[in-house]
Amino acid sequence: MDRCMTGLKEKTNMPASTEGNGWSHVETVQLNGSKEDLPETDSFVQQAMTLIMDEVVRKAGHVSGKVCEWRSPEDLTKLLDLELGEAGQAPAQTLQHCRDAIHYSVKTNHPHFFNQLYVGLDHYAMVGSFVTDATQPSLYTYEMAPVHCLIEKVVLEKMMEMIGWVEGGDGIFNPGGSMSNMYAMNLARFQRFPEVKEQGLSACPRLVLFTSEECHYSVAKAAAFLGIGTKNVYVVPADQSGKMIPKELEKQIRTAISEGAVPFMVSATAGTTVLGSFDPIEELADVCEEHNLWLHVDACWGGAALLSNKHKHLLKGVQRAHSVAWNPHKMLMAGQQCSAFLVRDKTGLLQRCHSACASYLFQKDKFYDISCDTGDKSIQCGRKADAFRFWLMWKALGTRELERRVDHALEMARYLTEGIKKRDGFRLLMEPEYTNVCFWYIPPSMRKIPDSPEFWQKVEAVAPKIKERMMKTGSMMVGYQSHGINANFFRMIIISPWVSTKDMDFVLDEIHRLGADL
Amino acid sequence: MDRCMTGLKEKTNMPASTEGNGWSHVETVQLNGSKEDLPETDSFVQQAMTLIMDEVVRKAGHVSGKVCEWRSPEDLTKLLDLELGEAGQAPAQTLQHCRDAIHYSVKTNHPHFFNQLYVGLDHYAMVGSFVTDATQPSLYTYEMAPVHCLIEKVVLEKMMEMIGWVEGGDGIFNPGGSMSNMYAMNLARFQRFPEVKEQGLSACPRLVLFTSEECHYSVAKAAAFLGIGTKNVYVVPADQSGKMIPKELEKQIRTAISEGAVPFMVSATAGTTVLGSFDPIEELADVCEEHNLWLHVDACWGGAALLSNKHKHLLKGVQRAHSVAWNPHKMLMAGQQCSAFLVRDKTGLLQRCHSACASYLFQKDKFYDISCDTGDKSIQCGRKADAFRFWLMWKALGTRELERRVDHALEMARYLTEGIKKRDGFRLLMEPEYTNVCFWYIPPSMRKIPDSPEFWQKVEAVAPKIKERMMKTGSMMVGYQSHGINANFFRMIIISPWVSTKDMDFVLDEIHRLGADL
Repeated sequence: MDRCMTGLKEKTNMPASTEGNGWSHVETVQLNGSKEDLPETDSFVQQAMTLIMDEVVRKAGHVSGKVCEWRSPEDLTKLLDLELGEAGQAPAQTLQHCRDAIHYSVKTNHPHFFNQLYVGLDHYAMVGSFVTDATQPSLYTYEMAPVHCLIEKVVLEKMMEMIGWVEGGDGIFNPGGSMSNMYAMNLARFQRFPEVKEQGLSACPRLVLFTSEECHYSVAKAAAFLGIGTKNVYVVPADQSGKMIPKELEKQIRTAISEGAVPFMVSATAGTTVLGSFDPIEELADVCEEHNLWLHVDACWGGAALLSNKHKHLLKGVQRAHSVAWNPHKMLMAGQQCSAFLVRDKTGLLQRCHSACASYLFQKDKFYDISCDTGDKSIQCGRKADAFRFWLMWKALGTRELERRVDHALEMARYLTEGIKKRDGFRLLMEPEYTNVCFWYIPPSMRKIPDSPEFWQKVEAVAPKIKERMMKTGSMMVGYQSHGINANFFRMIIISPWVSTKDMDFVLDEIHRLGADL
Repeated sequence: MDRCMTGLKEKTNMPASTEGNGWSHVETVQLNGSKEDLPETDSFVQQAMTLIMDEVVRKAGHVSGKVCEWRSPEDLTKLLDLELGEAGQAPAQTLQHCRDAIHYSVKTNHPHFFNQLYVGLDHYAMVGSFVTDATQPSLYTYEMAPVHCLIEKVVLEKMMEMIGWVEGGDGIFNPGGSMSNMYAMNLARFQRFPEVKEQGLSACPRLVLFTSEECHYSVAKAAAFLGIGTKNVYVVPADQSGKMIPKELEKQIRTAISEGAVPFMVSATAGTTVLGSFDPIEELADVCEEHNLWLHVDACWGGAALLSNKHKHLLKGVQRAHSVAWNPHKMLMAGQQCSAFLVRDKTGLLQRCHSACASYLFQKDKFYDISCDTGDKSIQCGRKADAFRFWLMWKALGTRELERRVDHALEMARYLTEGIKKRDGFRLLMEPEYTNVCFWYIPPSMRKIPDSPEFWQKVEAVAPKIKERMMKTGSMMVGYQSHGINANFFRMIIISPWVSTKDMDFVLDEIHRLGADL
């Protein structure tokens, strides 16, 4: 871009006629040339890349460092120079902002980060995100994102193959699984009542959908957002292992019908957020078929098991779903956000449901096959190339390595589970099916107290206190919550292929170290 | 992460009790150590960074290169090695995929890319995106994204200051302006009928909103998605310059009331997609006040004018809006997607409207001020740190340089407009207010034909043909469309601070070169 540096600093000579339009010249505007010093930003970009390489790729992921550098909101506000001013600053100062942002951010790629349903990303995926961030494609049309329209298609097809939709289907990548669950709900409703798109719900009967009490909270958010209402999400009880009970589903369906409402959808979960449970898809599909309901499977978290020959049985029957949400950014480490919404329909339902046919993007007189212009399937307009980094890491690693990683994470969860069973003071909430390992730590002072409301009231205070200490120490990050009748417990999530049995032992040792005096 | 390389390759010894759970060991799983060669990926990341620096930052933005390397979907499918296989591949091959992806992607940072309401991003913003992509924060909670929760707050506050909300307000960053417009609609409806969240629209009267015929298509998408229905978007005529006519709005409101429907919202546009027009916010605010309607301003594209003392008059009255959507990834080049939704309410409406209070994220017994946990204001769960790169570039450049860029783009649009007026064969559609310059090119063979349906039928075919030729040449990218009664015309969008009057001259020369024989 050196041309910009040598541009003439002329001013335009405007005809008087433009004055009537409210236009007159900004004397300081240079019409040729930029004030910004491009060689300076070039060197800044170089230095920033070195910084990211050193501080994130190498250092932050190393077990010897801290997982987080906890500061209270007040203290961190003081430490970061947040204010936005009139004048710019030297590149060195901007580089320091990057260094600070890295330093005070949670190290999601640290081996002892077990806090969420994702961890810091695979290196190939990271490079994929750098490529798309630098090139800035937006997937409205093939014209604007030729490479990425094709890649998204290939990745969706591969995922559909894993689901078992032998005849294919349709799909789109979304900014997050919550969005995918919304798509499912909108599609299910549109398929049943196509008039809803134009006339809205005021033209429809009361619509009811069903999901289990263990579902992700996005189902409720979606129902509220789509105008269905959270009360029209009928919550089906789950069994002790967190699975939706098909007989209870049938009961709820009959209740809804007896109320004069119209059931239209069941949202099953493959890999629940807290317990990591898998709903019995096969049996739910039977119920859905009988009652003509759309079956959506929220496999955002559990979908990765489809890559494992050992564990794909967890999603048995998933090929009978009408739609599936699956986030490769979770277990597969494809980087946020990489969320696929997949639909079995092959008649263009997705496009019919969401299209608005904007004339400035989706011209009919284009010179290429406009079936490649997939943007109108989306409720977004600009849309990032989220499939690319998943595709790139898949190419680099191959399906077998992805399978190995899934198997590794599940084995590690098994190892941790056995450790919990063996150790004094640790109590397992339930046998895990996936890599969510839920357990209580009981400090020595409470171990003799018999099970009772008082005992559990004491236990309730343990996890938050240990969590506070682990954050302030920065030794690891593990989530906790209360859940139903269960007092606060830890929920360990295992994902990274770079964790070992030593890390599992460390977690239990560290919890004991942090909480033994409570 | 060298520790992973030296890990023992042990196998776990599981107690028989786990068998009942359907678990047994995957013999090939290594519980300590990873098969992946980390030094190898380290070197891959390094090489990829060099590639991005050379091919995107330096080369793709250079005027001497092509804007796009057009291939048909069929040809490009053959050129790219898309298939996902069982085995992985060597890093060199993965690097080649990155090179190919860059080569065949549109060069959005090229000075002759004028196709969309965004261009390839500012270098500081690009580095900001690299930082967040590498560190992978997710903005549910302060615990998970301390730096980014604070930065998002500061950026939102600064944007509200620019809008003129002296007492502040609330807001959130979203994946795109379409999403922000949906938020506005949901908030407006919830504020009027809070019961809609639980009970859905079946408990409400027919709700109607108003927007101009020039609005973005996301308003229709939002109405469909939210269950309001596209027919309940009453489309208000615009005047010849593309501005909503307040008197026509009043008429439509009266019509809706007479039908027994309940008007609840007006969505005004500050910077329309095609013409770049600004609705008369002050007058629309008067109408909204009179009828007690929520006023939303979709300033996704035009919001940047608020940074310019010269041009902020375009949004006169915007401080009277209840909500504003503003995308810094458009005119301000903050990189996709950087979209703020801002709301004047200070009572927590945004949170009340969208919250679902998930127990595993938004625990009440945390050890810090949970007002920093902003995630429940969102309809997403995981949410990227989109504000960071805007903040970083703002810090680096300062408000004055952002203002200068906006002024520069508008001056350039003015220069181009005057060029169109002066040249034979170019006809301006209307005087631009912003940087959308809409015009026809009339090839010499048609210049003698009098204005008539036949003439415009011939003109209709010109822009698509020239577009095809410019894509295949790769010399530039400019969008076209038909619009209302107007036959296909070019819509130039000027954003980049690195374009000069020479580039404007080039555009007109090149269109003539490509179309003179038609």
